[in-house]
Amino acid sequence: MKGIRPQIILFGDSITQQSFSPSGWGSALADNFSRKADILNRGYGGYNTRWALFLLHHIFPLLGLANPPVAATIFFGANDAALLGRNSERQHVPIEEYKENLRKIVLHLKRCSPTMLVVLISPPPIDEQGRMEYAQSVYGEKAMKLPERTNETTGEYANQCVSLAEELGIPSINLWSKMQENEGWQRKYLSDGLHLTSEGNAVVHKEVVQVFNQAGLSAPSMPNDFPHHSEIDPNNPEKAFTIQCT
Amino acid sequence: MKGIRPQIILFGDSITQQSFSPSGWGSALADNFSRKADILNRGYGGYNTRWALFLLHHIFPLLGLANPPVAATIFFGANDAALLGRNSERQHVPIEEYKENLRKIVLHLKRCSPTMLVVLISPPPIDEQGRMEYAQSVYGEKAMKLPERTNETTGEYANQCVSLAEELGIPSINLWSKMQENEGWQRKYLSDGLHLTSEGNAVVHKEVVQVFNQAGLSAPSMPNDFPHHSEIDPNNPEKAFTIQCT
Repeated sequence: MKGIRPQIILFGDSITQQSFSPSGWGSALADNFSRKADILNRGYGGYNTRWALFLLHHIFPLLGLANPPVAATIFFGANDAALLGRNSERQHVPIEEYKENLRKIVLHLKRCSPTMLVVLISPPPIDEQGRMEYAQSVYGEKAMKLPERTNETTGEYANQCVSLAEELGIPSINLWSKMQENEGWQRKYLSDGLHLTSEGNAVVHKEVVQVFNQAGLSAPSMPNDFPHHSEIDPNNPEKAFTIQCT
Repeated sequence: MKGIRPQIILFGDSITQQSFSPSGWGSALADNFSRKADILNRGYGGYNTRWALFLLHHIFPLLGLANPPVAATIFFGANDAALLGRNSERQHVPIEEYKENLRKIVLHLKRCSPTMLVVLISPPPIDEQGRMEYAQSVYGEKAMKLPERTNETTGEYANQCVSLAEELGIPSINLWSKMQENEGWQRKYLSDGLHLTSEGNAVVHKEVVQVFNQAGLSAPSMPNDFPHHSEIDPNNPEKAFTIQCT
């Protein structure tokens, strides 16, 4: 369907894929942008930036976009930061490559549309204890005794994400730092040491809205895509639609 | 953005517009169809079917749709059923016209795509007491003493909606009847006598999923739009993407 509304794309891993779950940050954005913009979820659980590159030209084709997205969030790193030699090593991407992959993604999006607002979001912190408990609840005795991700390593990836944003002059959200500002972040924001609770989703939502606002993308200041019902004269409805739809 | 995923459009009034609020039925559908289909919200608060007709060709253009939506829910009637001579009379549409407007909408969608699954949803029941209390909380002493909608009249509109679906051989959901099957529906399902609580949203969600399933539109049986991460060989990621993306 040829959209009338601008599109905002959420591109990322499972934390994006799950963002339309109850209290999810994607749903909350969709609610904010109700009648203003479409929020499209392009989250791919388990993906790292290396695999994300294979999707880039499909999700954001360079040609044939009459209306390229007005904004995109790029939210990877939680899987790239999986440690070598541990359970999730197949998802590991070296930190230098992570940064370069993110750069390729951002530059591709800017080629799609130089005016697209691209926001980099760092991975959230890791609660290693929560992660171990989760692994034991799923795999029981077979669970590895060492965490497959550490908070320290994930923090290094978060730093590279934010550093790249500075290099490219685009906004970013250091979720890793932001969440750790609050006491009890481990259980408050993370459901299994990695994925988000309702409160964790609320943090992402709040940060994204703030960055969007600072960049001039503010739902309240955008027009409704069709007349508000109060603007329609019941005796002459054509009038309101003639003005706004032609 | 040219979508890879099929689109499902939710077309309706405020009950559709609000469907991405926390626990909303639209968000829940988007979560079900994660990586399968995009759920696009085309809800217009306050609209009746007469005004909806002005949007039809914009939202569902007959030409230029490379990928028409695979499904649409049409969810109007709560405003059409507003009573003449009461506070919301400007939204009133006579019942015969309501049915004919719905018919025009359905036939237009079928012209867009003969295979589009079109589902008619009737308005929910009205809790007149809840509606009055809401009006008093907003307008105080100035609130009218008579409800602007009655459950009985809305039920007649719901019957016409379902009757039209039968005439046209398409599925429908009689939300007006369905909700009243349960004791305490007034407060359980309705927040202000008209709009939906979380539990009310859950009813709509469940009914829509059931109708979709019966018509063969089932999220679990649809393919992911790109390889599941477990199908990606970390030593040869190209392989999975070559198979599914070309």
